[in-house]
Amino acid sequence: MENFTFFNPTQIEFGAGKEQLIGQHLAERGIKRVMLCYGSERFKREGLFDTVSNSLTEKGIELVEFGGIVSNPLISKVRDGIASARANKVEAILAVGGGSVLDSAKTIAAGVSYEGDVWDLFTGKAGITSALPIFSIMTLAATGSEMNLFAVVTNEDSKEKLFIGAPALYPKVSIVNPELMRGVPRDYLVYSAADVIAHSIEAYFTATVHPKLQSRLVESVINTVIETTETLLDDPSDYNARAQFAWAATLALNGLTIAGCAGFSYPNHAIEHSLSALFNVPHGAGLSVIMPAWMKWYQSRNPAQFKRFADSVFGVATPEQGISALETWFNKIGTPTRLSQLGIKEADLPAIVENAYINARTFGIADTYNLDVLSTILGSAL
Amino acid sequence: MENFTFFNPTQIEFGAGKEQLIGQHLAERGIKRVMLCYGSERFKREGLFDTVSNSLTEKGIELVEFGGIVSNPLISKVRDGIASARANKVEAILAVGGGSVLDSAKTIAAGVSYEGDVWDLFTGKAGITSALPIFSIMTLAATGSEMNLFAVVTNEDSKEKLFIGAPALYPKVSIVNPELMRGVPRDYLVYSAADVIAHSIEAYFTATVHPKLQSRLVESVINTVIETTETLLDDPSDYNARAQFAWAATLALNGLTIAGCAGFSYPNHAIEHSLSALFNVPHGAGLSVIMPAWMKWYQSRNPAQFKRFADSVFGVATPEQGISALETWFNKIGTPTRLSQLGIKEADLPAIVENAYINARTFGIADTYNLDVLSTILGSAL
Repeated sequence: MENFTFFNPTQIEFGAGKEQLIGQHLAERGIKRVMLCYGSERFKREGLFDTVSNSLTEKGIELVEFGGIVSNPLISKVRDGIASARANKVEAILAVGGGSVLDSAKTIAAGVSYEGDVWDLFTGKAGITSALPIFSIMTLAATGSEMNLFAVVTNEDSKEKLFIGAPALYPKVSIVNPELMRGVPRDYLVYSAADVIAHSIEAYFTATVHPKLQSRLVESVINTVIETTETLLDDPSDYNARAQFAWAATLALNGLTIAGCAGFSYPNHAIEHSLSALFNVPHGAGLSVIMPAWMKWYQSRNPAQFKRFADSVFGVATPEQGISALETWFNKIGTPTRLSQLGIKEADLPAIVENAYINARTFGIADTYNLDVLSTILGSAL
Repeated sequence: MENFTFFNPTQIEFGAGKEQLIGQHLAERGIKRVMLCYGSERFKREGLFDTVSNSLTEKGIELVEFGGIVSNPLISKVRDGIASARANKVEAILAVGGGSVLDSAKTIAAGVSYEGDVWDLFTGKAGITSALPIFSIMTLAATGSEMNLFAVVTNEDSKEKLFIGAPALYPKVSIVNPELMRGVPRDYLVYSAADVIAHSIEAYFTATVHPKLQSRLVESVINTVIETTETLLDDPSDYNARAQFAWAATLALNGLTIAGCAGFSYPNHAIEHSLSALFNVPHGAGLSVIMPAWMKWYQSRNPAQFKRFADSVFGVATPEQGISALETWFNKIGTPTRLSQLGIKEADLPAIVENAYINARTFGIADTYNLDVLSTILGSAL
């Protein structure tokens, strides 16, 4: 077991009705003016906006609206957000939405405190030392952003999808109400399942040190995601399944499962980010395509852990059967497993490989994931 | 799944050598004078004291010593600690030891901020609104106190062993270095295993709402404790086993496994605290006696969960076989399963029952655990 620091100061407020107290959480922290980040105008029609704005108004908190954030969120939009946050002198950022809205909110919060161009924080030209306090109300469970210090944003000019991470980006309070996720469309539910599984398996398979306790925690998350996704596809109104899915999504990327692990990397994310950056593919849909292809290529490097996965998750005997069972399950729930299902053709591969190689460098894994290897993996996913 | 708040701001510094940075952690928080709580003078002979005091001195931090804390720590000693902390105007409390030392340190930290007698905080006569900042360096993994807001102390006059809990009691930083636990005697290792299992099973069996994800997390902890205890009994120098045991102990009582659970209680702790209070029994040894007896009495109230436990932990089919397997395992590792092994006789039962009934009231479960029920459970453990 490797030395580690575990420190996660985010307060999770989980359950039905919790969004009604958002005003109180901000007021307790002395906040008087907040920027409310969101995605589509649907949010305003569905009652949640009224709940949030009433809760803020009751506590005398002013609200500056910032809507129109799209999935695979864009750095240009973030720049607009920073300008508005400065102009309106907001004291905090509140995200209401999924991971894209929250990641944009985190980036705005960090960007306000940085004098240069915010993309510098992604390229490593500058570090993040402070940020406005961040709050969230989640309407989609997938990215784990509600309880971690990461944010992922796409630069549409350079076609790069990169991430930032810093302690200042832990949300102060994240509200996770499974009822607000009931309306998540079927396709986004299954993409989210793939995303949570991807978060779970990256370190699980790639770590050079992966204590068995941590493997057990990862399998607890994956088995819960598989079980609750099936329940929700049958009955989207099953609150208990929705809740466990959401809590599993949070635990998959809040630092818990990687404590004591060493030498791990995020190759599936490095490759998928290129699909999202170049073709605006939903992140989870890209991951369900990449994962089986990557696993087939990678499994001989860690056969014991792939055997463990096969047995603990799908009750099958060999690494190959485990990978095949996962691919079959993705097909069953209806998330893609082939690039062709995303409209990506063989002729597109060179551009993807080139972009993914840049990501591999950013992720520090370009030695292993060189152009040849990336071509092999992506080629097998056609 | 029940609504919940998850908020745990303790920073865990886990691994070899981490105690060398204790001075830095205090200095970062502006602390200039600290009370160092510990147990026996052995601590001074074994080098750890020098490491800690050098680390503090390097950062210009003054150290006020407060040694002699015993297991099943006493409120009289805590009162002495509060007096010394006030007289020396310490700004923080640092515990170096196991759960007893840390729980005493937490209580001193809270007591300094309360004008009346500190026992009032245990009886509910007064609440805990603030405490001096608390730090810990753990030399025993068992109680989970390093990452939670609880403390348990015995009042030797009234023969009560009670607990306090408040957010101010979360340690700021807890250092968990498995190497410092290598010298834990064999008997305290197996008592600790019983303690961690007890923390894991209370909510697991008694909750009226216990989401399956949470059951899986609990089983991950229990299976790790069983496996690593056996490894450590064979080879006390196995760092990886020691480390996973310690991390499992922390996770068992840091709020993670009970998130979303409802209607649970701590009957095994309520009963065991009487054994410790009246006979100064090691907490874990008392628990390994109480648990099988309690399980046999309780299992028909939650047969599905007992069946799950039997299968997931011991790979056996029925609730009865699961309980029997646990008792057999306790016997195998050498932690007691009978009151007689603790030197407790039938004639002692009435006093224990009476004391446990007071605890049951404190724990809010006296309706179920009345004098008759307590007699039945304790009688079956003779």
